[in-house]
Formats: sequence, structure tokens, C-alpha cells
Amino acid sequence: MIEGKQTAGRGPLLTFGMIGGGTGSFIGDVHRKAAVFDGKSQMAAGCFSRSWETTLETGRQLGLPEDRLYKDFTEMAVKEAEREDGIDFVVIATPNYAHYKAAKVFLENGIHVVCDKPVTQRVEEAEELAQLAAEKDLLFAVTYSYSQCPMVRHAREMVRRGDIGDIRVVVAEYSQGWLAEELEKTGQRQAAWRTDPDMAGISNCTGDIGSHIEHTVSYITGLEIDSLCARLDAFGEDRPLDTNSHVMLKFTNGAVGNYWASQVAVGRDNSLIVRIYGTKGGIEWEQEAQNYLKVAMVDGPVQILSRGNGYVYPEGAEWSRLPSGHPEGLYESFANTYNTFLTALAKKLAGEPLTDKDLDFPNIHDGVRGVRYVHKCVESSQKDSSWLKF
Amino acid sequence: MIEGKQTAGRGPLLTFGMIGGGTGSFIGDVHRKAAVFDGKSQMAAGCFSRSWETTLETGRQLGLPEDRLYKDFTEMAVKEAEREDGIDFVVIATPNYAHYKAAKVFLENGIHVVCDKPVTQRVEEAEELAQLAAEKDLLFAVTYSYSQCPMVRHAREMVRRGDIGDIRVVVAEYSQGWLAEELEKTGQRQAAWRTDPDMAGISNCTGDIGSHIEHTVSYITGLEIDSLCARLDAFGEDRPLDTNSHVMLKFTNGAVGNYWASQVAVGRDNSLIVRIYGTKGGIEWEQEAQNYLKVAMVDGPVQILSRGNGYVYPEGAEWSRLPSGHPEGLYESFANTYNTFLTALAKKLAGEPLTDKDLDFPNIHDGVRGVRYVHKCVESSQKDSSWLKF
Amino acid sequence: MIEGKQTAGRGPLLTFGMIGGGTGSFIGDVHRKAAVFDGKSQMAAGCFSRSWETTLETGRQLGLPEDRLYKDFTEMAVKEAEREDGIDFVVIATPNYAHYKAAKVFLENGIHVVCDKPVTQRVEEAEELAQLAAEKDLLFAVTYSYSQCPMVRHAREMVRRGDIGDIRVVVAEYSQGWLAEELEKTGQRQAAWRTDPDMAGISNCTGDIGSHIEHTVSYITGLEIDSLCARLDAFGEDRPLDTNSHVMLKFTNGAVGNYWASQVAVGRDNSLIVRIYGTKGGIEWEQEAQNYLKVAMVDGPVQILSRGNGYVYPEGAEWSRLPSGHPEGLYESFANTYNTFLTALAKKLAGEPLTDKDLDFPNIHDGVRGVRYVHKCVESSQKDSSWLKF
Amino acid sequence: MIEGKQTAGRGPLLTFGMIGGGTGSFIGDVHRKAAVFDGKSQMAAGCFSRSWETTLETGRQLGLPEDRLYKDFTEMAVKEAEREDGIDFVVIATPNYAHYKAAKVFLENGIHVVCDKPVTQRVEEAEELAQLAAEKDLLFAVTYSYSQCPMVRHAREMVRRGDIGDIRVVVAEYSQGWLAEELEKTGQRQAAWRTDPDMAGISNCTGDIGSHIEHTVSYITGLEIDSLCARLDAFGEDRPLDTNSHVMLKFTNGAVGNYWASQVAVGRDNSLIVRIYGTKGGIEWEQEAQNYLKVAMVDGPVQILSRGNGYVYPEGAEWSRLPSGHPEGLYESFANTYNTFLTALAKKLAGEPLTDKDLDFPNIHDGVRGVRYVHKCVESSQKDSSWLKF
Repeated sequence: MIEGKQTAGRGPLLTFGMIGGGTGSFIGDVHRKAAVFDGKSQMAAGCFSRSWETTLETGRQLGLPEDRLYKDFTEMAVKEAEREDGIDFVVIATPNYAHYKAAKVFLENGIHVVCDKPVTQRVEEAEELAQLAAEKDLLFAVTYSYSQCPMVRHAREMVRRGDIGDIRVVVAEYSQGWLAEELEKTGQRQAAWRTDPDMAGISNCTGDIGSHIEHTVSYITGLEIDSLCARLDAFGEDRPLDTNSHVMLKFTNGAVGNYWASQVAVGRDNSLIVRIYGTKGGIEWEQEAQNYLKVAMVDGPVQILSRGNGYVYPEGAEWSRLPSGHPEGLYESFANTYNTFLTALAKKLAGEPLTDKDLDFPNIHDGVRGVRYVHKCVESSQKDSSWLKF
Repeated sequence: MIEGKQTAGRGPLLTFGMIGGGTGSFIGDVHRKAAVFDGKSQMAAGCFSRSWETTLETGRQLGLPEDRLYKDFTEMAVKEAEREDGIDFVVIATPNYAHYKAAKVFLENGIHVVCDKPVTQRVEEAEELAQLAAEKDLLFAVTYSYSQCPMVRHAREMVRRGDIGDIRVVVAEYSQGWLAEELEKTGQRQAAWRTDPDMAGISNCTGDIGSHIEHTVSYITGLEIDSLCARLDAFGEDRPLDTNSHVMLKFTNGAVGNYWASQVAVGRDNSLIVRIYGTKGGIEWEQEAQNYLKVAMVDGPVQILSRGNGYVYPEGAEWSRLPSGHPEGLYESFANTYNTFLTALAKKLAGEPLTDKDLDFPNIHDGVRGVRYVHKCVESSQKDSSWLKF
Repeated sequence: MIEGKQTAGRGPLLTFGMIGGGTGSFIGDVHRKAAVFDGKSQMAAGCFSRSWETTLETGRQLGLPEDRLYKDFTEMAVKEAEREDGIDFVVIATPNYAHYKAAKVFLENGIHVVCDKPVTQRVEEAEELAQLAAEKDLLFAVTYSYSQCPMVRHAREMVRRGDIGDIRVVVAEYSQGWLAEELEKTGQRQAAWRTDPDMAGISNCTGDIGSHIEHTVSYITGLEIDSLCARLDAFGEDRPLDTNSHVMLKFTNGAVGNYWASQVAVGRDNSLIVRIYGTKGGIEWEQEAQNYLKVAMVDGPVQILSRGNGYVYPEGAEWSRLPSGHPEGLYESFANTYNTFLTALAKKLAGEPLTDKDLDFPNIHDGVRGVRYVHKCVESSQKDSSWLKF
Repeated sequence: MIEGKQTAGRGPLLTFGMIGGGTGSFIGDVHRKAAVFDGKSQMAAGCFSRSWETTLETGRQLGLPEDRLYKDFTEMAVKEAEREDGIDFVVIATPNYAHYKAAKVFLENGIHVVCDKPVTQRVEEAEELAQLAAEKDLLFAVTYSYSQCPMVRHAREMVRRGDIGDIRVVVAEYSQGWLAEELEKTGQRQAAWRTDPDMAGISNCTGDIGSHIEHTVSYITGLEIDSLCARLDAFGEDRPLDTNSHVMLKFTNGAVGNYWASQVAVGRDNSLIVRIYGTKGGIEWEQEAQNYLKVAMVDGPVQILSRGNGYVYPEGAEWSRLPSGHPEGLYESFANTYNTFLTALAKKLAGEPLTDKDLDFPNIHDGVRGVRYVHKCVESSQKDSSWLKF
């Protein structure tokens, strides 16, 4: 509102810096809008690109003072940690390859972290970050934001209350068609880094979108993977990384499932669909229709629950911003992740104790599990799709 | 950042004040988030309620200094006009009854206006505001935001390019079920003011949602209503205003249509659906699935166009924020209205000439037509549903 | 078996003759298959066309002996009435223009009738047939077969049980796009007779498909039309008859509604949709997804009832032939009409008394009301779409 | 029409006998109606049950003379083969366990066969039947009728023409929820035999519905399975056979896929869904909406093709009976299988040569492959879900 940090009803706004997300980035802008959506934080610093020019340009567009722009993120971590008005947390929105190093240096400098997924390229790195965050007593959110939709949270609550009984079968998929042709050869930026092992790590499709399947199912069901068997294919010419993956799973409770992720499913845009069947009922959720949830109880008709109605459980309803039938979308899901994180961070900074509910955002432990999932899939596929313990 | 008064790449952020939208308001919060969504403006003042307590509390929560909070909007208009750092524009998000007076006093004090719809309770008032805005050379946006979805703009461009030929038939509806029972008797705030003639004016349903039908169809097709015949019913006990309306229309080009608006359609949440059939093709759009558009050409299959794909016309695509399959929702539609308005306003304040494209947001003339539509419907219904020239 | 004259468990098969339905006819074949679907009747005679050649050819294809083929239907009525093994009932599947005369002569000769809709071209004719059938004590079914789907019958039972309370609003439509261009000029047979006043009568669209709206709504709701106001348009070049009609209605119980029928709605195939909203709930049915019914109760989620499940009321379930999820289609709906008619006819011929349930097929009284509906719509439209008492 | 065999335009009707399908059977009635749907055959004999009483009762209801009813199928095969007016073909609609023996004895007696699927309980049996049919020069249809829907045939033609390029990924499922609880314990007949190894063989779910997945995919794509890995689970209490199966597949052309079959997917009725993605396009088909096909080409919108429209390929259109938007259902799909089989049989009996197109119905070779598929799935699952060559 006014110069510098302002006093809101709840005290000054939290401040953050961003790594990555320079002009032209898709997800950087989503993070920025989501972080400020509820008026609880504001951006104060940034290192938006490996290109200093891009960082300067992005900073200028965002109205940041030049002394809060940095050529590299290590410098930023150190300097911001030293400033009295230094950032409260950092948002890491780079391609995958830089997540680990960036997160590590900010944690080391005592700064809380919000990082995109998959959180690192190697399992050990993710575990190290988890360890470090614990040692430093810092919050670490991972933006698996699909799970933060109100109807996904309603689904989780249904499972917790036993509405659908014991889970038997999980069928989930995340299909896209945008890489059916070699878009990366046209210079398209999103395609270029995702299909490049140096930038993306050991997996493209399974890491980029398969990991969302793993998280969303895990989030709703609480099931633990016992073992899996995976087949990854790099459909498309000259592609070193997978663009399609089939995974068959056994869970520790005896449930079974399959996950399918694809970037070559022509006609599909961004079709994350999770279907869960228990002894008493079934639930189905589609990300592209995120405001609805299909539910059926044994012998009953399929019901289409719609966000914003009175029958939605409080655990889902409290994440709902608009009346029924007024669509919420991706920004709002992201904003939900930030909102929980920011509320927890504000309490933490105020010295208040944090409850489990306060900490109910996707975190570094979800991040570790996600990286392990990607690695297990790749390993299984490399071993002739043999079954591996998870 | 978004919240702080600072210099963006394009110069200082525009500032606005808000009338209405106190704590607990639905649409006030939508306006606030939408107005700042793209980092082009910030709130600086407010008169959020007839209750000074509510205004104070809302202002505190939003981090506004107390000297920018006002007990009544006239005082606010006058004082803000006097301040060197006074607001650039005002957002009017009250129930209908206050729109006219509030808009008028801000226009008189030289302040640009964004106002919710229906813009006034009487046609003459709307015309007066249009006249006043013209005289004062001020911008006046009316937040008919459904039309600002990218796929609605694509639909408009299809019509303009002649893709569907000459329009013959328009069938549109806006159905909700939330007033099937007398929610207003429970103290529910949204229901209370909408069913109260003092607050809502001569119509509830036709004014609140029927007006969106009129606008969205008009926006896409450019058709002009020649005459109409309407039947309004106040289903529910002790209701002075309509909760359901059927309207049959003839357009000046020879097309015909019907519009149905209802708040007693149990099972419907917020179902604005527009269907337009021409000599060469048909298009269908549903607000609850706003990221898609159904299109069919004579003898061809139905196509489901999805926002974010390459085949979307530039006129729609430029309003798209996210890749295909990543849902945009109501906030983003509202933000589109604000984005156009703010870009135009910045140019205007900078003394640059404004093109038709710059001014391509729903404006006071749309507002006038909308009020006329509501009044014609009420008049027809009162005259035994006889046909009236529009 | 089904085809041979033999003794079934319930006695000899009933026999029928057909008027119209020569080779190439769409609906004639549907009637023939539906009439024998449940093994209760067999064809024995026919006058399939004004062309004797066509009748001979059709009869030969159907395996009919030549002495049961007739050059005109009057001769057929007289001769079949004289034969000891003469037909039990006649099926009239000609274009509209011949319905009245054919039905009349068979009634006069004491032969039961199944006739397609609209049952006659003039109201007086339909009333005369009703009178005649009553005098002669003959059964007269009219094949408004959409209403004979199990889920439509479930919907009717819901209304009868008061599940959705008092009906307030009915919104129904029947849209097709096949006449967007002048198909009749290409010699397409279905288009040719429907757009020809000599063959179709005073209306094309309203008579051909609008009448299905009227019937289906009436069937489900039992509501009686108090008055209506209609606008009919003959979109397309050189068309004497309507291809689009909008109708606004008031019912005697205070409910209101609108019906839209169109043959120029590009992208729509055969989209009969009926939506009914009461004080307690709403129901929606789409013919193209006839095995399902959407139901919502106040404050509850939308439910998708699926034919064949245990929760379907007996009144609907008894008309269901296949397990849930195994689609039934148009033939089966038609066969339901015939099945009821044939069961009633067998009882009647056996001298058993007929209950209301036995007679629960669309009959000549539905036919009269349908013709009146078409005429009232045309009359209203001709009188500047003024309101007419029904 | 008249006594005994009648002369249709194309000569006398073919006659058939039925094994199984006694009163109360679901699929027996479907076979009977489908076999006579197009007026090309009639039933003449039957052995409807192991219970003579049931056979007598069923025969009486169907109007069969008692001398054409048989206590066991061997007797029937022998006697019918001896009769001058003996049946032309037999329809086997028993539970799985009797398929092999019944088919064998009719083939041995020179009678053509239509048999339900899975065609036998063991691969060797199916191969023996194939061998026998070849030796005896007899037609053998297997009623995998879902593939006979016009839009499935359109899909096959799309693949054949190369419309979607080289196939990369196949994702198919067949989910039902009816066995989520132990319906077999209530005496429900369909559940009882399917969950009984003596009646069903080594598999319930994979055999009953998984085999339809295998067939439909194979039919559309022509792909050959290279190897597969399966996990079968017998969810439900005291169940010896699977009620859920996940299968991962590699095809010989390099494509991959997964098939999921389930009877415990609460909320699903009969949801066979096949999705096929190639280098140029994707196609998706759902059995419950069998009249439509979703198609997308790279960079184009999803198209919803609707049966009966002019853009449907002749190879699909020729199987279409009704205009667009008038639903066809399961009976019609079954009737398509019979129609092709009967046309071929009539030509064969007339001594005319049969083309590939004449023989284009699911046959014993499809049947063999189907049984092999079920066995490979069971074997893989028993071997810790290891990969097996197909």
C-alpha cells in the first residue's frame, strides 16, 4: 500500500524473493500471483534467470529496486539473510536442475523455502534438504498444488472418515498431447528443458506429471506404495527422456493400482484424473473440472458434488473461495498452498506453536517421496520393467 | 509488490478506492483480487459499508491507512478528488441500489469508475451516467465479466469473421437453484438483498443474472434486440421480486431467441449457457466450463475447442493466461476486465490516444442496455407478457 | 419363430398390417422391428406405398404373400376385416398427410390402430378419430416413443410420488441441425416431405419434433397447458413451413415454461432435453443419453441415475430390458410402446378387463392434444405471437 | 409370416437352435432378439437349460414345437443334423463351462456355430474348435459384439487409413461396480456363475470383461501383443476368482499399453473405454456412449463424431441403422454380428464364394486369442506378475 512493509490487520506482510521465473516463464508468474493472492505476502527480491539482463528486466517490470536483484542465488541467499528487512522466504521456480542447490543455500542461510516439484533430481538430495530443513527448523513447501483444490481435500476427508471403506483399487492418469511432435526442436522453451536430461534430470514425463499422480493419490488416500513395476517410453524422435509411462502398483494395505502419464496422448490437454474405489464407495476427480467430484456409494447413483455447496465437508469447504458454479482454477489452487504456508510462517515468526493443521501443505517429505517415485519408475523400466520394492 | 506503491516498468501503479465490499461480501473480494491481479493497480481508499465499524475493520484487514477510509462515498469522492495522491478510479461493488448515486458523485468529481451490474436501478439513471462520463471524458467499466473469458472472445471473433454465417437462433440461459427455498428468511446476506426491492430494484433474477445473458449474447453476436416478450415469476413464498424469467426475443436482423433465467432450478449452480446458431455453424459456451467452446460447422462433427491451444484466434488467445488444460476461473475473467480497463486508463492518464481495442471492455453503454433489458422484461411481464419494442 | 405364425405360451401371435414404410423409409423399419421385438406379434399384410411396385418389392423382402399386399389402404381395411385370419391391428407409418384417412378407415372396419405422430393434420380430425375409437371400442396407440424409455417413466413416477414437490418451471427443447441447409432440394426424402405442406400439414418443425416436447413434458409432469405464445420461423430458402419454434407457456397449476424446437441448430443431432424444476427437486433427461436421468434435491448434489440399477422405481424398472450400462436405444423405446399396446390388445381380444396400467401407452387423446399444440403454436405465431388459451 | 419356413425376397429364413438362455437369462434373450433382428433367421430348436422343465417352459414361451426341444445338447446336435429341416446354425449362450463341449459336438455334426465369449475355458480347447471348424468348413462367430458398433468400425477404418499414424499407446478399461459386495451370496444368478470356477473357468473378471478389452483393442488397432504382465485380485470375501485386473502390455510394433478390468469399481456400470494414441492423432470410444467417437488430430481440437452423420466412413456407416442422434444400443451391436454372420452363411449355403468382407465378424480365431489372453494374465499374476511372452 505504502512504502516498504505495511501493517495489515494481522501485522506486516511477509516478504519473499524468487529464483527463476524470468519474463516468459509460465510457472514463475503463477507462483508470483499465487503468493500474493490473499494479501499476506509481497515480493521483495529476485534472481529470475541465469541471464542478468533477464533478471534486471523482470525486476524492473515487477517494480523491484535494483539492490534486491541478484546475479546468482547464492549471493542472494547470503545478502538477504544479512539484511534486517531480508526476505522471509524464497520461491524456487526454476527448471528442476537448480532446485536442490538453490533450496540448500537458502536453508543454510536460515530462509524458509517454497519449491516447485520434483523437488530435486536425486533422492539423496531431497533427503538432504529434508534433513537440513529439520535441523534449521525451517518450513519447506513443495507446490504440488493440484491436491490443494477444495474438492480434492473433500475427497481426502471422505477417505479419512471411512466413507468409501477400505481402498481396493486406484486408477490414475495424467495425460497430455503437447509433445506428440518434437516441439522442443522448434525452440519452444517449456518443451526444450523438459526433454533435456541436464535440465530435467532422469525423467521428463514421469517426473513432470507422473509425480503429480503419485502425490495426488497419496494425498487423498494416505496409501503407501509397497512395490511397483514401470514401463517408460521416449516416444518421439531423438528423445533421451520418457514421454509416456505406465506403472503398476501394489500398496501396503493390499490395494492395487495403475498410473499412466503421457505427453503424447493427442487430444488431451492436462488431464489429471484420479479414481479411487473402496469397499463402500468410489470417488473420481478430474483436474480439468476441478470444482466437481464424482462420488458413488454401493448401490447408489453417481453423485456430482460441486464446490461451494453446503454438503461439502468443512475440510474442503474452508479452501473454497467462490460460490458454487463460479469456477476456481489453477491460480487459486496454487494460492491455497501459499495461503496455508504463509499462515503457518506468520505464526512461526510470531513464535506461536504450529498444529498439524497449520502445517497441512505439501512439504519436503512429499517432495522426497515424489523423487523416490520417479527414480523407482526409471529403475524398474531399465530393469525390463521388473517389480521393485518402494 | 503488487500491494506496494512503487514504480513498475511502466511507471507508478494506478490506485483505486472501493465502495461496498466490506468483510463478508462475495463480490467485493473478487473485485479486489481482480483489480490487482496483473500488478497494475493497488487499493488506496475505501468506504466499504454503511457501517463505519465495518469499513474500519475491512480497511484494517486490507492494510489501508485510516485517513483513506470514509464514512460515506460522497465525502470520499470529494476528498480523494482533492488529494494530490487521490485515487485514479473507484470500484463500486455495493448492492444495486447504491450504484447510481455512487457512480454519479465520483464522475462529478472527475474520477473514473468501475461499477458492478446492473449499473443502475432505472434506465434514466444509467443514461445520465453515460452522459456524465462522456461530458467528463471519464472511463466507465461495467463488470459483466463472463464475456471476458478467452473462449467467449474467440466466439465473438468467430461471429465477426463470419465463421458461422448469419445468425438465426440464439438460445441462452442462466440457471441457479439456490433460491428454491426462502434462503432470505435465514438471514443469508446474498439472498436478503437480492430479494428486497429497496436494495435490488424492480427485479431480482432478471436483473442479477438475466442481465448477464443479455450482455453475453450481445457481446458475442452484436445482435440488436428488436422486441421482446417476457414472463417473470416470483416463485417462493412472500417474494416481491422475480426468481424466474422466460423471455422470447426478435432481433433486428431477423434472428429469434429465448432467454431463461432462474434461481429456482434445483441442481443448477451457476449455469450460464449461450448457444448461437448461424447459417454455417453453431457455437455453444457454458460458463461453468469456461475454458472450452463447442463449435460445429454444417455437416461437420462437434468440436471442443480448449483455451490455450494454437487454434484459438488471437483475439481470444491474448486473454489467455495459462496453458491448455490448466483451468482459469472467475477471478481471471474479472481480472481480464480490469486489465483492459487499467491499460486504457494508464494510456489515458499518460495522454496517449485510445483505440477501439484499448476500450474493449464492457462499458456504461453496455450498462445502459442491460438496465433497459431488465426494465423491458418487467414491463412486458406486467402487461400480460405482451411484446414490447426494445 | 418371432416371424412365424405359431402358438407361443400365451397363444397365437397377434398379426398386423402396415400402411407406409416402404423400402427406404426410416420409421417404417423401426415400427416393424419394434412391433415384433418381444415376440408378441407378426406382420401379415401391407400397403407400403402409393407405388404398387414399392409395395410389392417391400412385401417380397419381408416375406409377405402377395394376397396380403394392397394397392390402397381402404381396400386393405375392408379385405382384412373380412378375412377370418385378418390382421388384429394396423400400423400407420406414412408421412403425416395420410394418417387421418388411413386411421379412420381401419377404425371403421373394426381394426385397432397404432399411428405415428402427429396423429392428424387438423385438430378436428384427431378428435373425430378419438370419438370413433371410443364408439368402436378399439385401441389406438400413438407412437410418442421417447416417453416410453424406462428413465422417463422413472421421472414420471418421481413427479407422481411428489419427490420434486410442486412443479414451477419446465424448460424443454428438441434441437436438430440437419435442415440448416436446404436438404430438401437435393431430393433427400425425409427432408422433402417434412418441408412440404401437402405432406406435412401446417407445420414442419413444431409438428415433427415440437410435438415430442409437448408429449414428453405432459407425460412426465401431467401438467395442463393454460396458454401459450409462439414464434415460428421458416429459416432456409423458399421454405413454406417452420424450421424453428420458440414457445412460452403457462400451465394451469401456475408453472411456466418454454419449449424450443429447431432443425437449424447446427451441431445438434436429435437433442430432446426435458428439464423440470419443482419446489423440492429438479430432474433433467436427454434423449441422446436416454439410459440416464439427472436428479437433484434441494441442497443435495446432482445425481446421475442409470437405468438398470436397483434404485430405479419399479414403474421405470419394469420397462428396462438390459443390465445397467448396457445401452438401450430407440428401437427398445418403440418396442416398449408396442409391448404395452400388444399386451393390452391380447387381453382385450381374450375378453379380459383392461386396467389403467394395461392402457398406459400414448394414445389418441395424447394424439389430439399434440395436434392441438401444433395448431395453437401456428395460430399464435400468425397472430404476432400473441398469447392464446389452450 | 406363414407356416413353416417362408420365402423372403432372398429365399427362406435361416434357422437356428439355442443352447442355454433359459427363462431369466440375460444374454440368451439378447442373442434371440439379435439373431432375428434383421429378419434373416428364426429359432427352430433349443436346449435352454440343464433342467428339462426350464427348457420346456422356455420353448413353450417361445412357441417352439416340443419335438425341437432337447434334454441335452448332444442329442440336439445329432437329431438336428439328421433332420431335413434341421437348424442351420446353433447359438451357444450358456455360462462359459459348456461352450467347448457344445461347440464341439455341433461342429462335429456339421452345424455352424455362434458362441458367446470367452469361447472356451482352455486355450487348447479353443484351438481345437478352430481346427475343427476349418476341417469341417463351418462358420464360427464369437459374439464380441461391442466391436460391431458402427463407431468402433469407423475407428478401425481410421487406423487402417493411417489417420492417426503409428500407434504408440493404448489405454483401455472395462469397469463395473456390481460385485463390490458379495452379490453371489444372495443367489443372484449372474454373480453366482461368474464367481464359480466350475462355471467360469480360471478367471471371472479378466475372462468376462477383460477379454472384451483385448478384443476391442485388437479389432480397432490390429496390434499384436508381444508380452504382458498382469496383476489379478479377488477383492471380496471368499472369492476364488479375480474381480479386478491390471495388465501392462507391449505390442510387437513397439506400442505400449495398459488394460484395467474391474467389477469392484463402485459407481461404474459397464464402462468399456478404449483410448488409442498415434503419431498423428488420438481416438477414444466409450461403450456407454457407443454412438459417439472422440477424435483429435495433432494441434486440432477434440471432435465428437456422431453415428449417422455424413462424415462417418462407409466402413462404419454401413453398420448404422438409425439417423444421427437416435441411439442404437446393445441389441443393435449384437444384431450387427448376427447380420454379418447370417449374410455370410446364406451365401455359403447358396454355394457362393465368401470374401474377407463377408467374413468380417468376430470369429473363432478372435476367440482363441481371447482365451490365450485370459490365460496369460492368470499365469503372469500367479508368477508374481512377471512378464510373459504372448
